[in-house]
This record gives sequence, structure tokens and C-alpha cells, in this order.
Amino acid sequence: MQNFKTSKLETVYCVVVFMRRVAIVGVGMSKFGEHWEKGFRDLIIEAGVQALQDGNLKGEEIDALYGGTMAAGRLIGQEHITALIADYMGLNPIPATRVEAACASGGLALRQGFMAVASGLHDVVVVGGVEKMTDVSTAEVTTALGGAGDQEWELFMGATFPSIYALMARRHMKEYGTSVEQMAAVSVKNHLNAAKNKFAQFQKPVTLEEVLESKEVSSPLKVLDCSPITDGAAVVILASLEKAKKYSDCPIEIIASAQASDTIALHDRKSLTELKATQIAARKAFQQAGVSAKDVDVAEVHDCFTIAEIMAIEDLGFVEKGKGGKATEDGFTALNSDVSVNTSGGLKGCGHPVGATGVKQAVEITWQLRGKAGERQVKNAELGLTHNVGGSGATAVVHLFKKC
Amino acid sequence: MQNFKTSKLETVYCVVVFMRRVAIVGVGMSKFGEHWEKGFRDLIIEAGVQALQDGNLKGEEIDALYGGTMAAGRLIGQEHITALIADYMGLNPIPATRVEAACASGGLALRQGFMAVASGLHDVVVVGGVEKMTDVSTAEVTTALGGAGDQEWELFMGATFPSIYALMARRHMKEYGTSVEQMAAVSVKNHLNAAKNKFAQFQKPVTLEEVLESKEVSSPLKVLDCSPITDGAAVVILASLEKAKKYSDCPIEIIASAQASDTIALHDRKSLTELKATQIAARKAFQQAGVSAKDVDVAEVHDCFTIAEIMAIEDLGFVEKGKGGKATEDGFTALNSDVSVNTSGGLKGCGHPVGATGVKQAVEITWQLRGKAGERQVKNAELGLTHNVGGSGATAVVHLFKKC
Repeated sequence: MQNFKTSKLETVYCVVVFMRRVAIVGVGMSKFGEHWEKGFRDLIIEAGVQALQDGNLKGEEIDALYGGTMAAGRLIGQEHITALIADYMGLNPIPATRVEAACASGGLALRQGFMAVASGLHDVVVVGGVEKMTDVSTAEVTTALGGAGDQEWELFMGATFPSIYALMARRHMKEYGTSVEQMAAVSVKNHLNAAKNKFAQFQKPVTLEEVLESKEVSSPLKVLDCSPITDGAAVVILASLEKAKKYSDCPIEIIASAQASDTIALHDRKSLTELKATQIAARKAFQQAGVSAKDVDVAEVHDCFTIAEIMAIEDLGFVEKGKGGKATEDGFTALNSDVSVNTSGGLKGCGHPVGATGVKQAVEITWQLRGKAGERQVKNAELGLTHNVGGSGATAVVHLFKKC
Repeated sequence: MQNFKTSKLETVYCVVVFMRRVAIVGVGMSKFGEHWEKGFRDLIIEAGVQALQDGNLKGEEIDALYGGTMAAGRLIGQEHITALIADYMGLNPIPATRVEAACASGGLALRQGFMAVASGLHDVVVVGGVEKMTDVSTAEVTTALGGAGDQEWELFMGATFPSIYALMARRHMKEYGTSVEQMAAVSVKNHLNAAKNKFAQFQKPVTLEEVLESKEVSSPLKVLDCSPITDGAAVVILASLEKAKKYSDCPIEIIASAQASDTIALHDRKSLTELKATQIAARKAFQQAGVSAKDVDVAEVHDCFTIAEIMAIEDLGFVEKGKGGKATEDGFTALNSDVSVNTSGGLKGCGHPVGATGVKQAVEITWQLRGKAGERQVKNAELGLTHNVGGSGATAVVHLFKKC
């Protein structure tokens, strides 16, 4: 792993450790959707108990907890959420740490957990992501989500997230000839995948016409170009590879973890048609693992809007810049095509409980690499990727996974 | 450091690293207070620039950023704050990670930064804490802070933080005979120290009578028993000890870092007069460093309320359980007495911008161990401690520091 630096032994305080291989040994998630009957705690506990059972683990075997939530303070009035989760999962007194980077909170939590195990600090770490979004009005959710961008220069001026991504879409259309039909094709594909995933918020396919005729949100984006408001939670349990074999017949190794930052405001960027943080994180991740984009079989990418998936498959290197729309239309990213993108249904079809999304991506890739993804199984899936974005691209996190 | 586990070399992916010694090479903070003229970004940049100058560092030498903020989403409408800070400090595209554990957010950010350098992942890491609390009404701040506890079982029932700590105070009075005069003595001491600190919110001493006659907030706690609402930011820059000598003539080493969790709600605890998370974190920290409470010369402890300092000096082991009130009254924790506690003025006198507090504690200890604390200098200070608590004790973080 090239970005981990070496150092020479310094004093008697030092203890020799090694950057260790890290694997996922247990996964779980709640159904994503509008859970009027369940609270924040119910959702994360449901996912957590599943993950523990999946990994045949007991609570006392867990050394630390990392949690991703974007806006629990605004959406349910609760901060300090990992202490709450540790308490409700019976994990006290282990260290419990919340990390937040807007919609990339889950991916960042996964990365902190990975680092904690890779460094030798902890052997078994639980990583959770959760968001309960339907306890407040849609207007309040929209305002809370606006806090992912530059609230002083964007949200206060009326620029909510659909309008920010609409600006990117317009520019992508102008520079590369991307069409509304090509964007709609992302939605059609992801809803088709979601219909095969019992955990997904939306369980039925949509047609190209339905997307194109759906209500406009911020031109050119229509409601079926946008990910929904969702309640949900996802949990993965990480262990050093040595320990992983004790818990799982088929541990899924995390072979790279990379994170990068960009300007918080869109207006400060040189280009509106690429996310530089995605490009940097992807390059680092591929370097760490010694693989390239063409080796990836299955990828969960951050399709908060259909244009976001088109930019993502370009920035990750699956297709050339500007070719994402055409490639999607041609089926390049369909299930069991060149690279199967968003087999879970993605943010668009599976739903987007913001803090949970980055962890859910890892859950889906785990199921795919285990060969347990049912009707949406990618054949011979060996190398998986997750790509989680905060805001309009101020944070991006990329992980790579393979079967042990 | 006994809680860091070793592992044997596993594969060609592994790179040999060592748990490295970590030191503070630069510190900075804004004045704490009511900053009607400054925003969130101004405060953190002010502290950040000071810290960079203090360490003779350039931005491009920084490898990663960790930031602590409790409730920026509610207080200024902004999430994703470390991406914003990295952007405004010109640090893109380094990984920027926000951590949150209510009022322990700053201490947790320090711990993540410490781990990132100790593990060998990064060489130079900036750790910031910031909160801008005066942009909304006091009622809104009180509600936001209520999110640090169990909002469903405490805040929704009307239990704000003063009332939660008032319950602890009442029980401490009943069990140990602690008096309101002894609690007031904490306030008198901390205001006296604050009056010697140009960065403190309150610049003048208060008398025992003034504390006792101040307005009641939640009996037995009066307004001068409570930490104030504060705007402020603090930054420390960490480097591996090897690199530290390049940046600082007097690097301050972090010789222990420990964190523990407890129940989020007070009603779930066996005892109301101790914070178990503090006890566990302190025990681990002392073990890591091979020292004991009696070796500590100067300590910044979490005195969100006067009763909290009394419990803290007991839970940290400076005095026996139940003797904290009497010890304070007798001057045991006064400047240049047995152990100098809260020389900065603490949360009570220096102010409590929640996310910044844990980082500010490390700034004060750095100044003390460098011998640069001016009128409030502790003579021959060699070993320092910081103690940062989230909520009513669901999270506690303890760090130990010494001169290199």
C-alpha cells in the first residue's frame, strides 16, 4: 500500500506492528425506505444485529466502533450518535467515534475502521452508517442536506442540491452532448437492479418514458433523476485477515482505501463536469491495490443524481471523460455487462439514507463477491469498488474489495 | 503503549511500520468569547494560521486534517465542515475528516490525529476544533446541546444539561457532603486563572459570594457554576517525533491517548457521582505512559459545570472519590499547588465552544510544558493531562503530554 509510509524504530516506547490486511467478516442492513414505524436506534440495531450474526460474532469481541451519520442533529435532534449506538448495541466501554463528511459519512467511517485495523490498533471493528430522514418535513431535509455544500455561498442563495447537480448536468450536456435520455438511462438501469433487491426502497422498474415525463425538479433533472429521501442503516464488521478466517468462510478483503478533498463550493472549481476528488481518490486506490479500472467487475458508485453516475464512471476511469452518457445508454454498465454498476439499485433505486449509503455500498459488494446477490448476482465477480461522495464532490472516498 | 497490538507480517501487501512517537509542533487559538464580528470560518482560519506559523510549517507539508465540531449543522446550518476547513486553509486535496462526540469532539479529533501519525499513515496532521454558538438564540443552543445526551429520554422530557448535572451535584452532596461553597470554589479558581489568560472569555475574577448569589439555573447550580456559550477555535499540529524536531525547538510529546464510552442516558448508570468512561480512559492512559495521577503537574479537565470538575479530579485519581469538593476548597488544584487544574480558566472561565474545547486543552498544556504560559505558568511543569467529556459522560478522552 504505497501511501503508507515507513519509519525507523525510534525508542523503547515503540511497538512493532505491521500494516495488516483487513477483511469484512459480517454485514447487515435494514430495508431502505420510509420507516414510519421505526426510529433511528431501531434501524441501526437491526443492521448491527444482522452483521454480528452474519459474522458469528459476540459483542465482547468488538474492539471499537466507527459510525457515519450526516445530519442526525437536524433530522432527529440527536448528536453523539456513536456513543448512543455503542450503548444500544451493548458495546460499552469501547471507543465509539462518529465521522461525518455529508453523504460520504459512511464511506469515511469505513475508511477509519479500515485504518484502525490495518494499523494494528484494533483487531475487530464495527462500522455503521445510519440516517433517519422522514421524521421532519421534506423542506427541512432539503435544508439540512444543503449543509453538505457551501451553505453561505450556495444554500443561502437558494442553491439546493438538485440545482447544483443540474448545473453540472447542463454543462455536461453542453461540453459532451450528453442527453436527457442518457441520464434517464441511469435511472432505468438502477430501478431495474433495485427491483431485484429486497432491501431497496423502490421495488419496480421504470421506463425511459416515465423518467422523461416525471415532474421537473431542477431542469434538466426530473424527479426520477434524483435519489429519494430514505431511512436506513447498514453495518459491516472488519477484522484483520488472520482473525477474519475465524469468523467467515468467505471474508472479503479491502485491498485499497483512499480519500480526497476538493472545494466545498461548486463555483470555485475549474470544471463543472468532473469531480477532482473522485479522480484523485480513484488513482490512489488503484495504485494501492495494483489494479486498474478495467479490472473492476462490480461497482457501487455515488448516483445521488443520474448525472452524478455518468460523471462517476468517467472520473473512476471506466469510460473516457464525456462518454459516460453514451456508455450507459449502450448498456456498458448494465448488470453482467462490461462493469456492473449499482447492482443494489444505487442511491437512485435502493435509496439514499445519507450516512448509511457508503456502508451499504460495502454490504452490496460483499454480497456480490460472496456470490450471494441472488437475482442480481454478477457472474464471476472478483473485484469490487465503492465510490462515495460528500456534497457536490468536496469529499470522495474509494475502496476496492476482493475475495480472499 | 500497551493497547497497541502486534501482529506478524502476513503478505507482500504489508509494509513494515512502527507505532511512532507523536509530538505537537504548532498550536494556535482564537480568543474565546462572543464574536459577533466573526464567522465560523474566520475563527478556525485564525487559529489554523497561528498554528502553522507557530510550527514554521507550510500548508503543503500537511498530510491530513481532523476536525472536531459538535453541532455546526444546527448552529450555523453547515455540515461537512472539515472539507470546508481544508478548502479555506488551502489544504486540498488531503483527506479531511470530521469527528463528533458532543463536547468531546475536539479530544476525539486529537485522538484520531494522534492515531494517524502513530500508526505511520501520516507524518504531519493538523487537528482543529471549532464552534460558533452565538449565531442562534440561547434557547436554540440549549436544545442543540441537549442532543449530546439521550434526546428521546432526557431532552424531550425537559432535561437540559444544567439539570442533568444538577442531579449529579445533588447526589454528590448527599453521598459525600459536598457543599455549594465547594462547588463555587471551582468557579472562583477558574475565573482567577482565566483573568491571566488573554484568550479567555472572562477576564476578571469572581468572589465566592458572587458565585453563591448568582442566579439559579438548576438548583443547586447557579449561573456562575455553569460554563458559558462561546465562539472559538483551536488548532494543534502533530508530527512524528522524528519530524517534530524540524519544526519545533520544544516539541511536546503525546505519551498516551485513551477513549472510553458509557451509557448515553444518566438513568442507565449505577452511580450518578462518577463518570465510568473517565475512570476507564484515565486508567488506560496512565498504563500507556507508565505514570500515575500523582505525577501530573498540570491538567485541563472538563468543568462544563463546577460539579463536573469535582467529579473529574476524583475520577482521574488526583483525589479520592468524594474528596473533590474539600480538596478544591483547600486549594489542592489551585495554580502552583499540588496539581494545577484548569490553568486556562477551564470551560468555566476560558469559555466552552464545544467542539474546540478538547483541542484548546492541548494548546494550553503545550504552552504550560513549553514554559510559555505567562502569569499563569505552572513552575517546572513536566507532565500534563487533558480530559474531555461528551454529554453527561457517554464519551471521555484522556491524553497525557510531556516535554521531549
